[in-house]
Amino acid sequence: MATMTAAQQRAQAKVEYDAFLAVCPSRKLLDRLSDKWVTLILAALGSDSAHQPGTDCAGEPRSMRYSELLRLLAGVSQKMLTQTLRSLERDGLITRTVTPTVPVTVTYELTDLGLSLREMMRGLKTWAEMHMDDVLANRETYDTRVA
Amino acid sequence: MATMTAAQQRAQAKVEYDAFLAVCPSRKLLDRLSDKWVTLILAALGSDSAHQPGTDCAGEPRSMRYSELLRLLAGVSQKMLTQTLRSLERDGLITRTVTPTVPVTVTYELTDLGLSLREMMRGLKTWAEMHMDDVLANRETYDTRVA
Repeated sequence: MATMTAAQQRAQAKVEYDAFLAVCPSRKLLDRLSDKWVTLILAALGSDSAHQPGTDCAGEPRSMRYSELLRLLAGVSQKMLTQTLRSLERDGLITRTVTPTVPVTVTYELTDLGLSLREMMRGLKTWAEMHMDDVLANRETYDTRVA
Repeated sequence: MATMTAAQQRAQAKVEYDAFLAVCPSRKLLDRLSDKWVTLILAALGSDSAHQPGTDCAGEPRSMRYSELLRLLAGVSQKMLTQTLRSLERDGLITRTVTPTVPVTVTYELTDLGLSLREMMRGLKTWAEMHMDDVLANRETYDTRVA
């Protein structure tokens, strides 16, 4: 029996996983990815270090220090950031590099797998920013109608 | 003073909203969108009614009955489905139509705004299904390394 190539295995995997099914592992993965911190971290690892609110921060993926992420993701707790980064590292979406400076420097970078997800996450973030006014107007209309 | 066109207003809005900021309304919207049920509902409203697990369900957006959604989104509770649909309707992403049959038929359909988000949500669902094996392998490697 011929061994499947990696591409064939992936094609087969695509057929087998279905996130509509509660028991499918991809449902759990989708749940994991559906997290604003995940979205913001993956979007951040593609942006400029000196991020200015409102500027289009599309750019080359880059490594960021833990402290930079903590600052950029306003409102995230250290505990939440550490947990989220660890789960992303475990899933193989980011790598964690420790440089033995004093104090040690910890940087995070997207893997190729993380990179393949990044554009979607940036798209989601941009969509929320672009359509905020429409959504606010729709909410107002809805609330007037049902009031 | 000249009035801004809708396009100019949107362009300005884009500059003003920044989901990296905790106080920005778009952060809250991103949080709302970061929900597996939102992803699955928006992905579902583009798929064939006779969805077969594993088949590529890309297709024209279509309306779906409440009962169809309940069946397709395996594991969702009625309460959760109703709440999520209502919030999506309030945000102007879907419309709800009641047809006075006996019993009444309630159908949901994507609005243009919802449609603009759908491809991203389908992309996210497909990504989770496509890369599940990679992620599982990465987790195994990680767990072996830290054990």
